[in-house]
Amino acid sequence: MSRYESIAGGVTAPDGFRAAGVACGIKAEGLDLAVVAAGAPVPAAAVFTTNVVTAAPVLVSRSHLEQSDASARAVVINSGCANACTGDTGMAVARAMAEAGAEHLGCAPAEILIASTGVIGVDLDGAKVARGIAAASSTLSRQGHLDAARAILTTDLGPKEAAARAETGAGGFRVGGMAKGAGMIEPNMATMLALLTTDAKVAAPRLQRALREAVDDTFNAITVDGECSTNDTVFALASGASGVEIDDATYPTLVDTLRAVARDLAVAIVRGGEGASKLVAIRAHGARTLDEARHAAHTLANSLLVKTAVHGGDPNWGRLVAAAGRAGVAFDPTRAVVRIGDTVLFEHGRPFDERAPAAADHLRGTDVEIQVDLGVGTHEATVWTCDLSAEYVRINSEYRT
Amino acid sequence: MSRYESIAGGVTAPDGFRAAGVACGIKAEGLDLAVVAAGAPVPAAAVFTTNVVTAAPVLVSRSHLEQSDASARAVVINSGCANACTGDTGMAVARAMAEAGAEHLGCAPAEILIASTGVIGVDLDGAKVARGIAAASSTLSRQGHLDAARAILTTDLGPKEAAARAETGAGGFRVGGMAKGAGMIEPNMATMLALLTTDAKVAAPRLQRALREAVDDTFNAITVDGECSTNDTVFALASGASGVEIDDATYPTLVDTLRAVARDLAVAIVRGGEGASKLVAIRAHGARTLDEARHAAHTLANSLLVKTAVHGGDPNWGRLVAAAGRAGVAFDPTRAVVRIGDTVLFEHGRPFDERAPAAADHLRGTDVEIQVDLGVGTHEATVWTCDLSAEYVRINSEYRT
Repeated sequence: MSRYESIAGGVTAPDGFRAAGVACGIKAEGLDLAVVAAGAPVPAAAVFTTNVVTAAPVLVSRSHLEQSDASARAVVINSGCANACTGDTGMAVARAMAEAGAEHLGCAPAEILIASTGVIGVDLDGAKVARGIAAASSTLSRQGHLDAARAILTTDLGPKEAAARAETGAGGFRVGGMAKGAGMIEPNMATMLALLTTDAKVAAPRLQRALREAVDDTFNAITVDGECSTNDTVFALASGASGVEIDDATYPTLVDTLRAVARDLAVAIVRGGEGASKLVAIRAHGARTLDEARHAAHTLANSLLVKTAVHGGDPNWGRLVAAAGRAGVAFDPTRAVVRIGDTVLFEHGRPFDERAPAAADHLRGTDVEIQVDLGVGTHEATVWTCDLSAEYVRINSEYRT
Repeated sequence: MSRYESIAGGVTAPDGFRAAGVACGIKAEGLDLAVVAAGAPVPAAAVFTTNVVTAAPVLVSRSHLEQSDASARAVVINSGCANACTGDTGMAVARAMAEAGAEHLGCAPAEILIASTGVIGVDLDGAKVARGIAAASSTLSRQGHLDAARAILTTDLGPKEAAARAETGAGGFRVGGMAKGAGMIEPNMATMLALLTTDAKVAAPRLQRALREAVDDTFNAITVDGECSTNDTVFALASGASGVEIDDATYPTLVDTLRAVARDLAVAIVRGGEGASKLVAIRAHGARTLDEARHAAHTLANSLLVKTAVHGGDPNWGRLVAAAGRAGVAFDPTRAVVRIGDTVLFEHGRPFDERAPAAADHLRGTDVEIQVDLGVGTHEATVWTCDLSAEYVRINSEYRT
């Protein structure tokens, strides 16, 4: 059994990491460049956007992980400009960004991972980035985690940090993290970025596997509007400073703890979704396969009719049944069960509209739970989404200038 | 080369059809039951919803087409109640609906096709339906097409009719049609229904093939919010009254004419989409396959960020490129071209923001054209969608009671 508990702090909660966030003028105001560094190159892992249109920093970081054999000294992230759709110029700036990090931290450029978030199709100013990296590198500290978390935001409501401490038979280790969410208030900003750190001692391939497992149930299980950006990136670095070795016995605890921290960050991203007033956990169970459970949950989570019904507090089982029915997965309406909160609204192929008031009560809260039993198997998945409000439309309809 | 021209009228524009629309009290007020009948059982075809949750009238009509060897005397459609998620009771009412039609028109029950649209999870009142069928059957006329088109509406802005006359070497024939759209103002109403009629002389299997071809480029190429209902149905009946035989030579003209009428109806449905202020034609071309072209066009057409950008008049090429990139189809960003109206906003992997004002001008109109060249092939597809407005959210967030 895994044991972990939430603790205070962010990316520097685990031993062996320092961080800084500075203002270098990419944004009109505020912090806009973060550096999070280990004391030496350490095992690293990453999950990148599946969008075919891939921003320069993603291409550079992916290449660096290959060149360095998945070893990284630091992660450098800027906000205010995504450096996407910027052609060869963008690639040159991205490479220079890593070179500047390497110069100030004393490592190879391939040992620097980078990420950018902000407006796309606009050139990133390399001089400002270089100045920011110099400033951040010289002020790295254990206390710098909050500034770093602030520096990667675009229009998020606030910084997103999480951390946890795990116990294993071989001793304790920590996981920390920060994220930048889907606060897409400025058009062309839709990026989800996160950095997870741990002081567990884990080889890069195992770290990569654990990160992938944790991401599938967390960052890949959230949606605000079904969009996937050109820059989405999740990094993980493992300092090993706790001395706790991750082997087959302790691996499940690493996955669980990474997942717990990632889930806290992922849920915070949804809560901060544009115009969102409710966090909605959609659990699809009774599915034939895990993939089908995930697909059904995503379909419900992205249904405009479901999201608007939740927004309006309408316990509309019909929209849930219809969305499940069009998800393209095995589904038996006669054995399906639809619950909002604890209230069963649909079962044996028929609705129970007389129970609507209890479900409506549940929908008045800010944390909504919807469950659909597909009636055909034993697999399940949860996806977190938010309601769809007129405010979302207002925000995203505004002309950029 | 096919030759056809639009003509006035709806489902009775072709010879051999009569129609009526009556009020039988399913809705609180207004016409709510339509009968469209041929003079005798004629070849029939249908395309039904792919939703796993299938309403009783869909199950009954599908079974009737099998039993009758694709022959039908009439189509009976009610609005105000979808007869979906109504269990065995709903099946009994649906069968009785066909039996009442058969009794009044003097044919076998299997020669009656039925459809329902309206609230789901509520029992359809069989007595009202029977009364409506009796009244409609006794008032069928060539002039009844508009009443029939009105009787199938739920919260649509107005009736949707179209008709065309085609010329072939073997003579002329007509196609007519009516549709009920995606005016989903009352929750749980999302059904798209259409009936196409023709006086061409065509065997049922060929009519089915022609209908499928026409539907794929029209009713299956529109979206308001990506939802697919439990009741979606398109019927076609061929009276043969023109005497013009549809063989291999005239088949393309039949498909083109069915497609033209279906497109007029489909586009009218999108124009009447909830809260819609603009009709948006999204053309994906340069695709590797037709399926990929369709998939890319659908992804763009359902992107909330694209739909809100159009609503706000923002020529946001970035959202178009990012949506194409996440569509899961072959796409080369360096060879892609994005146009809004006639203005190229993105090419060679870079944007042309200086051209934004011309594109913004185009977006101020009510008919918007967006083209994305995926840069990898020669296939293309068009999908019609509408903008996403705060009004859509308001309409769909309202509590049902």
